[in-house]
Amino acid sequence: MRTVFFVSDGTGLTAEMLGHSLLAQFAGIEFKRVTLPFINTPEKAAGALETIHAQAEKDKNRPIVFCTLVDPAVKPYFRTNEALILDPCDAFVSLMESELGTPSSHRVGAAHAIEDLRVYMGRIAAVNFAMAHDDGVLPRDLAEADLILVGVSRSGKTPTCLYLALHFGIKVANYPLTPEDFGSQGLPKLLAPWREKLFGLTIAPERLAEIRGERTPNSRYAAADNCRFEVEEAEALMRRCNIPYLNTTRLSIEELATTILHRTGLTRFGGGAG
Amino acid sequence: MRTVFFVSDGTGLTAEMLGHSLLAQFAGIEFKRVTLPFINTPEKAAGALETIHAQAEKDKNRPIVFCTLVDPAVKPYFRTNEALILDPCDAFVSLMESELGTPSSHRVGAAHAIEDLRVYMGRIAAVNFAMAHDDGVLPRDLAEADLILVGVSRSGKTPTCLYLALHFGIKVANYPLTPEDFGSQGLPKLLAPWREKLFGLTIAPERLAEIRGERTPNSRYAAADNCRFEVEEAEALMRRCNIPYLNTTRLSIEELATTILHRTGLTRFGGGAG
Repeated sequence: MRTVFFVSDGTGLTAEMLGHSLLAQFAGIEFKRVTLPFINTPEKAAGALETIHAQAEKDKNRPIVFCTLVDPAVKPYFRTNEALILDPCDAFVSLMESELGTPSSHRVGAAHAIEDLRVYMGRIAAVNFAMAHDDGVLPRDLAEADLILVGVSRSGKTPTCLYLALHFGIKVANYPLTPEDFGSQGLPKLLAPWREKLFGLTIAPERLAEIRGERTPNSRYAAADNCRFEVEEAEALMRRCNIPYLNTTRLSIEELATTILHRTGLTRFGGGAG
Repeated sequence: MRTVFFVSDGTGLTAEMLGHSLLAQFAGIEFKRVTLPFINTPEKAAGALETIHAQAEKDKNRPIVFCTLVDPAVKPYFRTNEALILDPCDAFVSLMESELGTPSSHRVGAAHAIEDLRVYMGRIAAVNFAMAHDDGVLPRDLAEADLILVGVSRSGKTPTCLYLALHFGIKVANYPLTPEDFGSQGLPKLLAPWREKLFGLTIAPERLAEIRGERTPNSRYAAADNCRFEVEEAEALMRRCNIPYLNTTRLSIEELATTILHRTGLTRFGGGAG
């Protein structure tokens, strides 16, 4: 067991994401993860070092520290040999300065800082759109949507819609496929005018049964044979109607959202720090 | 204007976040950003290089490439002198191998990979909670919530709730402060039992008027004097009742969410790759 710290003068999100990514390359080791965000004064830097030193002593092992401090008024106070400090600014900023022929600005927390109103409103509008139409869509909503996700209930549509809205400002509508849709040869009537906007989600029937069973155990809705029937019919419909689709079973929400962006060619909006 | 590429064998999210963070240190330069995700075969690596070389020729300048390729079957094919390649694996993995005394696994896309069902269900449950209670909360919802955000309409409660749910699996309820709440000396009646769970959001009245005006221009709701009144009364209430609060005007959704986590001491759930 090793302890890993994420130390930042801002939110810590960049340090965490970089760290999680690199730690995933060491699958055999168990890591305890601690985020120390908003380290923005020399006193807080000293406090963070104390925490790290105490952990080193407790663990009898040097902690690993992913550090994204940039403020020159704070960074010099965060130095120690009792941890392995990995700092992407140290690693990359001087290379970037030479390449760009200009010094860096040492701005704190700049990655997630103030968005302009247009970007903010775009994200909010997309979030509101997703929330308003999660329970059922009207024809005019489908017209407004950038993308329409189709799939059986609990196949992952809602969190994917919200991720796409929150991070990329994309308006996603959500159409649940139900047994009523399985009979016909063509697309469900409501969807027919919007073939180009459709993207399907499917899921392993076993996982679907597990997910549905969490909320409504022992129901017909969550029964293994019913889940298998719905998934098979939904996949047949998507193949028949040439709806591109993705299996969500082994993908995280992040992977689903970015894969859909990539496949559909929709543009990532603003600087949503995904 | 310089072009920046984010090249990944997975989603590209880590490369983007790291890159945005470092590019923010060069405020004077305009960057064109291009993500090339899912580069997971030698052919795709060659295709990515072609894209980058074409851009270099067009720009008459070397692009900057943030690269998080790890697959040893792909990575060797992604080499060029016509771009500045910045690769956190190259920079950090061998240091981590020495520190941990074990070789890395070169697993692809491991950062955002398959979550266990418990973590997934936690995120989904929190998202569903946020969505179900955005339009109005009942007493039993407040009992179930991990956190209750209070603030005037359009102060940023909804996106913050969703971010906390989606990324950290935290159940956040949302209580809009309205003129009816401003009269009384104490907390609004519904909130009184849950003092410990409350966290306030406030906003500059000018920004509030702008945001409200986008949806309902020239309304009483969006009028400057009404926004000022509501914000002043809401802040007075929060101070009177000792509700900790944050001004959302100059913060992104990411900053809001992580600042609230930090101030309330709520735990980040699972490995939500925020």
